[in-house]
Amino acid sequence: MDTQTTLSTKQSTANSLRERADSSFECIRDEMQLVEQLLREQMQSEYEDLSPLLAHGALLGGKRLRPALVLLAGKAAGELTGDHVVLGTVMEMIHTATLIHDDVLDSADQRRHLPTVNAKWNDQTSILLGDYLFAQAFTLSATLGSTQACQWIGDAARRVCEGELRQIFTSGCSQLSEVDYIDIIRGKTAELCRISCRLGGTHGGADLPTQTALADFGENLGIAFQIADDFLDVWGSTERVGKTLGTDLLQGKPTLPLIHLLQSDPSMQTQLDELQSMSDAARCQAIVTRLEQSDAKAYTLATAQRFAADAVAAIDFLPESAAKKSLQQLALFSVSRNF
Amino acid sequence: MDTQTTLSTKQSTANSLRERADSSFECIRDEMQLVEQLLREQMQSEYEDLSPLLAHGALLGGKRLRPALVLLAGKAAGELTGDHVVLGTVMEMIHTATLIHDDVLDSADQRRHLPTVNAKWNDQTSILLGDYLFAQAFTLSATLGSTQACQWIGDAARRVCEGELRQIFTSGCSQLSEVDYIDIIRGKTAELCRISCRLGGTHGGADLPTQTALADFGENLGIAFQIADDFLDVWGSTERVGKTLGTDLLQGKPTLPLIHLLQSDPSMQTQLDELQSMSDAARCQAIVTRLEQSDAKAYTLATAQRFAADAVAAIDFLPESAAKKSLQQLALFSVSRNF
Repeated sequence: MDTQTTLSTKQSTANSLRERADSSFECIRDEMQLVEQLLREQMQSEYEDLSPLLAHGALLGGKRLRPALVLLAGKAAGELTGDHVVLGTVMEMIHTATLIHDDVLDSADQRRHLPTVNAKWNDQTSILLGDYLFAQAFTLSATLGSTQACQWIGDAARRVCEGELRQIFTSGCSQLSEVDYIDIIRGKTAELCRISCRLGGTHGGADLPTQTALADFGENLGIAFQIADDFLDVWGSTERVGKTLGTDLLQGKPTLPLIHLLQSDPSMQTQLDELQSMSDAARCQAIVTRLEQSDAKAYTLATAQRFAADAVAAIDFLPESAAKKSLQQLALFSVSRNF
Repeated sequence: MDTQTTLSTKQSTANSLRERADSSFECIRDEMQLVEQLLREQMQSEYEDLSPLLAHGALLGGKRLRPALVLLAGKAAGELTGDHVVLGTVMEMIHTATLIHDDVLDSADQRRHLPTVNAKWNDQTSILLGDYLFAQAFTLSATLGSTQACQWIGDAARRVCEGELRQIFTSGCSQLSEVDYIDIIRGKTAELCRISCRLGGTHGGADLPTQTALADFGENLGIAFQIADDFLDVWGSTERVGKTLGTDLLQGKPTLPLIHLLQSDPSMQTQLDELQSMSDAARCQAIVTRLEQSDAKAYTLATAQRFAADAVAAIDFLPESAAKKSLQQLALFSVSRNF
């Protein structure tokens, strides 16, 4: 497949995709604004020195996918309340904390067209700001008066870390199976989406089968979303994605394109080992060339689409509503986006 | 003052000090064992790869000061329950998470005679293990069925991060006043001690004045403890303390000995600036020499002792009990220890 053509097609449809994402949020527009407002309130400090840092942190999340999931799941299942705004803000803060720490782990300079905290300040500040956000998010979640929500949120955050640790421990491991990879991203990325949907449903008055269906929806969407992220790390445009690309490949992080390539050609590991002496840019290009010569691109996209379809199917039994339609659109959008 | 004499005096009394710490825990011996057991349970993973990492993390806290504070405060105020064991474990996990992240921030190799996580694994693993412990601790705290405890614990963890961020933002700042320094360590170190004592009291059935007194006790003890830590970073023995010393001085971290030196001699900043070109070891020795020539050592110790005395006084009105006596002993021990 021709990367240039794909990128140029993507560029031409970028606006309509962004609009599609925006239109998914139409039925929760007011509540999304309340989340934004609460987020800004939470990212203030009584210490003047820390204010620019916290304000910068509030900008890094960007897509606001997790608050949207909380609100849409709540609306698809029943009525939205003030709890949903709090929960959406909590999920976004935890997500932002993980991004800030990820940027230290990846030594990334840019995220969503903004300098990362580690680039603008330093690694130490990033580690502490991430910790600060985690703690603040847990404090905020406890204001809801439900220890069950606190437990779910704490456990979801733990699973995210567990997934990321497993990813590090399998880094450079050419034997990682696709099953183990999916299990890792189920923790690393899908867990926060899963719990966002489940909490949204629960606080919207959903019965147990609906809660479970919404949780399944969120998990499948999260997996699809991460596979699309892996795809964009290889075939995305730095300008559109707004962060340093190719870092997964260079760090030997096992992502689906590479796992599939290694499994489909037994000689590939030796070929990749021989690239070690190259410069980063040359090595990245050489890996991409090998991926392009295989069916890794089509396979990665098809796998992401399969999980997106599973997400859509999981909530198909819910009564028709604008919120349900938006959730299903979001699942499809998560794999068709180019940013 | 002669460092050699001080160290040798300390060595000769080390055993009796350790015994004093142990004897402080005598009336909560069984409950401390339950904390240890719960901590080990919490530091297990269903993923075999992660088990050695988590098991190593459980060993790094060492002194178990915070669980002891929870239990002793509970016992001084009323009756101990299963809640106290859970709360003690939660506080120790949060403390350990901050230590693991601190070791990354300080690039430290050793803690309590053990390799740090960053030395044994790497910085990435340390960041994620710290996050894992934070999340697991919050999850565990939510099992108590009290969102107030969750809020207090979350907010305490946030204040710790805030204190550490303020410390970084004032690093190398020769203008930091002693008042601001005390305010920073009130967050960074004393907050977890404060909330440990408050939670212990609350869950032991303490009335509001007793809760407040226990919180004051914990805060003053925590400040005394941190000043003693600053003291040991300059005048401790690596062998006894079990971690890399002199790092505060080299990193330009404002600690009380240095703040006092800078404030008592207006020419000192210029003298210290002139040391920048030296090797780390030579620079560290040159700073220590200047500290020794001033009254910084005696002043630092006296300040720590003043906060320890305030801690003792805060709970003096409580009825006599073994737990109250142990708390007061701990406050005095926090500044007389050499490890």
